[in-house]
Amino acid sequence: MRTEIASLGEFGLIRRLTDDIHLQNPSSLYGVGDDAAVLSYPDHKVLITTDLLMEGVHFDLMYVPLKHLGYKAAMVNFSDIYAMNGMPRQIAVSLAVSRRFSVEDIEAFYSGLRLACEKHQVDIVGGDTTSSLTGFTISITCVGEAAEKQIVYRNGARDTNLICVSGDLGAAYMGLQLLEREKAVFKGEEEAQPDFSGKEYLLERQLKPEARRDIIQRLAEAGIHPTSMIDISDGLSSELLHICTQSHVGCRVYEEHIPIDYQTAVMAEEFNMNLTTCAMNGGEDYELLFTVPIADHEKVSQMEGIRLIGHITQEQMGCALITRDGQEFTLKAQGWNPLQEQSVE
Amino acid sequence: MRTEIASLGEFGLIRRLTDDIHLQNPSSLYGVGDDAAVLSYPDHKVLITTDLLMEGVHFDLMYVPLKHLGYKAAMVNFSDIYAMNGMPRQIAVSLAVSRRFSVEDIEAFYSGLRLACEKHQVDIVGGDTTSSLTGFTISITCVGEAAEKQIVYRNGARDTNLICVSGDLGAAYMGLQLLEREKAVFKGEEEAQPDFSGKEYLLERQLKPEARRDIIQRLAEAGIHPTSMIDISDGLSSELLHICTQSHVGCRVYEEHIPIDYQTAVMAEEFNMNLTTCAMNGGEDYELLFTVPIADHEKVSQMEGIRLIGHITQEQMGCALITRDGQEFTLKAQGWNPLQEQSVE
Repeated sequence: MRTEIASLGEFGLIRRLTDDIHLQNPSSLYGVGDDAAVLSYPDHKVLITTDLLMEGVHFDLMYVPLKHLGYKAAMVNFSDIYAMNGMPRQIAVSLAVSRRFSVEDIEAFYSGLRLACEKHQVDIVGGDTTSSLTGFTISITCVGEAAEKQIVYRNGARDTNLICVSGDLGAAYMGLQLLEREKAVFKGEEEAQPDFSGKEYLLERQLKPEARRDIIQRLAEAGIHPTSMIDISDGLSSELLHICTQSHVGCRVYEEHIPIDYQTAVMAEEFNMNLTTCAMNGGEDYELLFTVPIADHEKVSQMEGIRLIGHITQEQMGCALITRDGQEFTLKAQGWNPLQEQSVE
Repeated sequence: MRTEIASLGEFGLIRRLTDDIHLQNPSSLYGVGDDAAVLSYPDHKVLITTDLLMEGVHFDLMYVPLKHLGYKAAMVNFSDIYAMNGMPRQIAVSLAVSRRFSVEDIEAFYSGLRLACEKHQVDIVGGDTTSSLTGFTISITCVGEAAEKQIVYRNGARDTNLICVSGDLGAAYMGLQLLEREKAVFKGEEEAQPDFSGKEYLLERQLKPEARRDIIQRLAEAGIHPTSMIDISDGLSSELLHICTQSHVGCRVYEEHIPIDYQTAVMAEEFNMNLTTCAMNGGEDYELLFTVPIADHEKVSQMEGIRLIGHITQEQMGCALITRDGQEFTLKAQGWNPLQEQSVE
């Protein structure tokens, strides 16, 4: 079934997408349907973050289902709020779509968005829906809340702090490589049959990332207050450099401690890629990278799913990765940089 | 001078654009440079609105200078906050640009954005900067504040309320027609020389709209609390219907009372267009449309730059325009609807 968007018009489409949205948060006073949404934060501070995703740059609809895209678009914003040690509460969603897309397509996108919102108890409170000449454009703004003293910035890391990371790294990047290979096969550019068995985790990490609300909650339960925190979207190297630059410190991270899943390792070998490079620079992991005082060593070591990967140093020591054989490599932000990658106009 | 964006990279570009941004509002606790901005609203409610502007759909860079585009992109968001009877305080700005654009281009856009922000005392607190395969995409989210009882929604209009509008209507639409004609001349499709003399007001209304902070302040000073309010972006007809639908009321507006500037009238004649249609459906006026109790008749009639154009009725009376010769025409939302207009993929 394909309903043309033009048959509903802008307001008809908005009604269809938002009619049965029920606000879940007491802070969501008034949502979709006026010039602006109204939020209420009597005691807490308001956090705000925004992301712009362009078809062909940030996602490829040849292998990303629209429902997954909606889910991921929401998750990457929640992840930014968790990275401040806050809780996401509301999102405003703006979409621009070309004629290629039907009402059902946009509904599929919204179903993913809403699934993510339900999981994280976030309300959709507004947005903008318009047309584009080519492709699909998504802009999401997320509002979160946190008590002032609870907020964790990027600039609080101090010498001797421990560097911690949640989950494992590099799998989302490997999932992307896998999907790109499938696309090449589909286009007849490669001969191999795509075979995803045994690689489900990689695909899931790429297509359906989970923002780490659980880590934020467990850190609070364990009484651990990170000195700095950031989410890993561009790659571990790039995020470590953000923390170190803004905190005016250096760091040492150890290759042997970087958490990597078995499937990621197998896949890197299959693609003949350097596994550590994938984990350091792959990006899109949406794990949390944070630093804690050395006094929290025991507490943090006991937390499941958290790995200590190194420590903060004085600024003049620079930022380096120590390999398994003891060599030191200066960290460089080779993370995903869309402004340097683009090649088409 | 043309600096390639790739030579700075994403973070370099952000630094260049935001390095000398000074936060003006006490509610702007922390701006650009972390996963999210931090805002503080201890007593007031938070308003949030967002807009997505696509090159080729919402603006044409053939005749819109980037500085003006930045100014207008900010103003249309401020206008949404004023339409809630609130004050805009912060914006987050996301841009996607293709290779066609240089660092200087983006700086020109930002200079317009910052001029608008300075005028309205709004802080730039964050955003996202990325690439697009084609063209320029702008997403702005604006945060505002208002005391709870001060907020004006679209749904509060009641039978016998007076309908008021600020400024004059149709000029921005005429400015657009003028620019489109110039473009056709430039392309050799028409013979007439573009002549803007005596039409400066129309161009200014199209290229440099002013959000009506002054009206909000003067209404407060006069002790007038509108029962409903909306800003005119899609055209008077469309906005009146939003108020009437959401308030479950009807309305009568009088053609003879609709405020129209002399230049707009001259231009409509030159283009052989129906002047009332231009004023009712042109859009992009960014004036405020609001309703007040009939008891405020005297107060509101004395306000400079406010025109009474009709009154609210019971719902079953429907929404109609009364022409100069006494005929009744049912209002239709013929406003600018990008989702029905698009024709290119």
